[in-house]
Amino acid sequence: MVKKIQVTVWNEFWHEQYQDNIKEVYPDGIHRVIAGHLEMQPDMEVRTATLYDAECGLSDEIIEQTDVLIWWSHMKHDEVPDEWVDKLYKRAIAGMGTIFLHSSSGSKLFKRLLGAVGGHKWREAHEKERLWVLKPGHPIVDGIGECVELQEEEMYGEYWDIPEPDELVLASWFEGGEIARSGITYTRGKGRLFYFRPGHEEYPTYYNANVMRIIENGTRWAAPLASSPTITSGNVNSIEPIAGFLRDGRGNRID
Amino acid sequence: MVKKIQVTVWNEFWHEQYQDNIKEVYPDGIHRVIAGHLEMQPDMEVRTATLYDAECGLSDEIIEQTDVLIWWSHMKHDEVPDEWVDKLYKRAIAGMGTIFLHSSSGSKLFKRLLGAVGGHKWREAHEKERLWVLKPGHPIVDGIGECVELQEEEMYGEYWDIPEPDELVLASWFEGGEIARSGITYTRGKGRLFYFRPGHEEYPTYYNANVMRIIENGTRWAAPLASSPTITSGNVNSIEPIAGFLRDGRGNRID
Amino acid sequence: MVKKIQVTVWNEFWHEQYQDNIKEVYPDGIHRVIAGHLEMQPDMEVRTATLYDAECGLSDEIIEQTDVLIWWSHMKHDEVPDEWVDKLYKRAIAGMGTIFLHSSSGSKLFKRLLGAVGGHKWREAHEKERLWVLKPGHPIVDGIGECVELQEEEMYGEYWDIPEPDELVLASWFEGGEIARSGITYTRGKGRLFYFRPGHEEYPTYYNANVMRIIENGTRWAAPLASSPTITSGNVNSIEPIAGFLRDGRGNRID
Amino acid sequence: MVKKIQVTVWNEFWHEQYQDNIKEVYPDGIHRVIAGHLEMQPDMEVRTATLYDAECGLSDEIIEQTDVLIWWSHMKHDEVPDEWVDKLYKRAIAGMGTIFLHSSSGSKLFKRLLGAVGGHKWREAHEKERLWVLKPGHPIVDGIGECVELQEEEMYGEYWDIPEPDELVLASWFEGGEIARSGITYTRGKGRLFYFRPGHEEYPTYYNANVMRIIENGTRWAAPLASSPTITSGNVNSIEPIAGFLRDGRGNRID
Repeated sequence: MVKKIQVTVWNEFWHEQYQDNIKEVYPDGIHRVIAGHLEMQPDMEVRTATLYDAECGLSDEIIEQTDVLIWWSHMKHDEVPDEWVDKLYKRAIAGMGTIFLHSSSGSKLFKRLLGAVGGHKWREAHEKERLWVLKPGHPIVDGIGECVELQEEEMYGEYWDIPEPDELVLASWFEGGEIARSGITYTRGKGRLFYFRPGHEEYPTYYNANVMRIIENGTRWAAPLASSPTITSGNVNSIEPIAGFLRDGRGNRID
Repeated sequence: MVKKIQVTVWNEFWHEQYQDNIKEVYPDGIHRVIAGHLEMQPDMEVRTATLYDAECGLSDEIIEQTDVLIWWSHMKHDEVPDEWVDKLYKRAIAGMGTIFLHSSSGSKLFKRLLGAVGGHKWREAHEKERLWVLKPGHPIVDGIGECVELQEEEMYGEYWDIPEPDELVLASWFEGGEIARSGITYTRGKGRLFYFRPGHEEYPTYYNANVMRIIENGTRWAAPLASSPTITSGNVNSIEPIAGFLRDGRGNRID
Repeated sequence: MVKKIQVTVWNEFWHEQYQDNIKEVYPDGIHRVIAGHLEMQPDMEVRTATLYDAECGLSDEIIEQTDVLIWWSHMKHDEVPDEWVDKLYKRAIAGMGTIFLHSSSGSKLFKRLLGAVGGHKWREAHEKERLWVLKPGHPIVDGIGECVELQEEEMYGEYWDIPEPDELVLASWFEGGEIARSGITYTRGKGRLFYFRPGHEEYPTYYNANVMRIIENGTRWAAPLASSPTITSGNVNSIEPIAGFLRDGRGNRID
Repeated sequence: MVKKIQVTVWNEFWHEQYQDNIKEVYPDGIHRVIAGHLEMQPDMEVRTATLYDAECGLSDEIIEQTDVLIWWSHMKHDEVPDEWVDKLYKRAIAGMGTIFLHSSSGSKLFKRLLGAVGGHKWREAHEKERLWVLKPGHPIVDGIGECVELQEEEMYGEYWDIPEPDELVLASWFEGGEIARSGITYTRGKGRLFYFRPGHEEYPTYYNANVMRIIENGTRWAAPLASSPTITSGNVNSIEPIAGFLRDGRGNRID
């Protein structure tokens, strides 16, 4: 029996509790809509967690068991305690996949994993977004058409100051005149990271079948290896002779 | 008249002052040997700075004027005050080139710019290193042969846990059986970064003509643009009409 | 029920028939050893084909059904008729995965897919090769250690004149002093391509469990998407109004 | 005295001679407008050549002397004789820079250098194009703003079936709803290649100062190294002992 992918959908869950117009769109929170779709996948086991749960909903045991962490945050980036960011960072480097949605590009964990992350343009003007596929053979776009149209989204525009992505899978056209790299991947340590741009809280983006298929695909793509190579580091002996002899890490002969 | 590249060579300068065997190799410090070569270039103007200078030798004025910062540190990474790291980081993101030598991969600035930087193997066993060119059309290897041999070097071995480089220009063969990515480039913000592996303090690596040619080439490659694009970010008006009208960053019509 | 990956292992099959020392190592041909391992995978269905079969063993039906093509050729690159190369090229661009082993870097199909492919160094001196993992989170190295040692292999050395790989998964150390990029990936059209260096016909490389695990992993990695995006190209109508109106591909109003 | 960059601007020069509306825009040909700008650069020496010149304007001597070849073709791709494509290919691999403009993506040389090049969308509807800078520290965008607006251009739309670029410097927004990767770089052999999308013959694109600055920058960026590494390939002796002895390329001891 194949082990199911253990998914944790984390949401700051502030807008949906404290802003009526957002509550209308996502009455149970963005995390529940995303989890609802993933729970229907036979190869996934899904839990949710929010800032309002004890320990951010992220006990050591849950972090340890999570194969892929899906993250949505916006207003409360900085209320996630550094201690949890540290734990998640270590787990991500060790192989846990991470999927950062929309404004989560401002989260502590995203910035910790990527290093130099700067600003970009943005506009909340109910404008059209069209995401074009730039890598049609990539697992993340399986089952999608050549573009995904969203009738209303927040705009994020270039230049977005991020490290060069490993892969640019999707890029967006916006009605107001800008473009954005909107589906990008990175590897950090053994962990795979997928950033997916759409998902402003005012719009029903996460009810869109294509958006959810991309998140579902991204989850599979980001899942850790069954058995990744064990890496050793630090001071090591030579494998081959150096000046005629095997040597320890300080250069002494090993006889 | 073309403006000269303003180079600052920074060295922690501890080994050469406090360890006799190192002092013998670099009596005036590694920084002086590197600066000595670069000063002979008609297109460069060079200053040096060390941890033992006031303000780490890095006044605001010097930071502002520096086009390319060359960095060597090892034992004293953590004695560079965070305040200076912040200043250098901001300047690097804004376009200053950075060249990190050897153990400087452990410096605060390198880790700040790259984010997730983990460990690698190492061994001090006077072993042979041979750096092979993997991009023979790259400016960094202008004037170099297809490989550079160093009779004695410290070994750094893979897997080295770093973000995927933008470019892999040189990779090393070591006598003891390991390999390493040893000449790699990144872009962060507008700044170009070159990491160059060799340069253990016990060996006369920086007297090697090929090594110095690579550092010289790297300095030219990393120099900022004369006039880089001015990037705007934050909440912006639409450039094109959205639903029939130009809009401000909150979606209101601009008439 | 999940559809099995349809694998075709193609071998030129000359050395093993006409050179006694090679026949001893691979009495039924390299293709049979590779197929033998893959046939044990519950998610794969495997056939073999050689230059000595009718139509190179590659009927239109077989090409159409093949999800992943594994290729070994050396002396007889140029005896594969252009017509078959054309068919395989089209299928690869349309999504069929390709795995090129060892000297297959000289095959017509490899050069057709990659364009500018030049030379590299080589030596047949029974020397040791050690392949180091450079991307420990990559599916191709699942179940492998941090390096794979082969006691005897032919050497291929840098600089190897190939287009920049999308990913550098493994690189080799050779006893005689060279290094090589030895596990590299590309995407061409919708097709994923994996080149894997070891496999000189004189040595029992394809009996090595790690080598076969890497080929097995590569096969899964290169398998086509279940449903890749349908891409349209050519002269297209506008999706959005241009100067006030939807337009056809020649600029005429569509009313 | 620094050697000037030897630039050859090649144009098929058909539209401008045989279509009145194009002749009006470029009475002396696109090549003359491009050359006119580059001739004003103190570090460049410029010649032009067209399909209507003897030997395509590309004698062996001119090919040998050319540092950077700028190419524009559209209707007459296939009238460039294979013999010249072979010569240009060899020179490009050996280090000559190449800049392919607009429809030159269909030229024999472009396809020969890149291998698998497929289709893309296109539309001639006098629509607006806005090229956004995605790498603001790249030499190709020196002196440019964060985007370049062109009031009328032909649209090229994704997905464009090309090998993954080494760098994505500029990407375009089109009025009609599409996007395109419009400023991309590759390395092939020792040669650098820059593809720059705008430049439909009906529009005065090459009179635009930003467009010409980008071509000028690209020319400098693509210029060959003063002294690139000499690469050896083929059967080579070992540098280090193998099983105790230096060996020739067939494994025999060298004593």
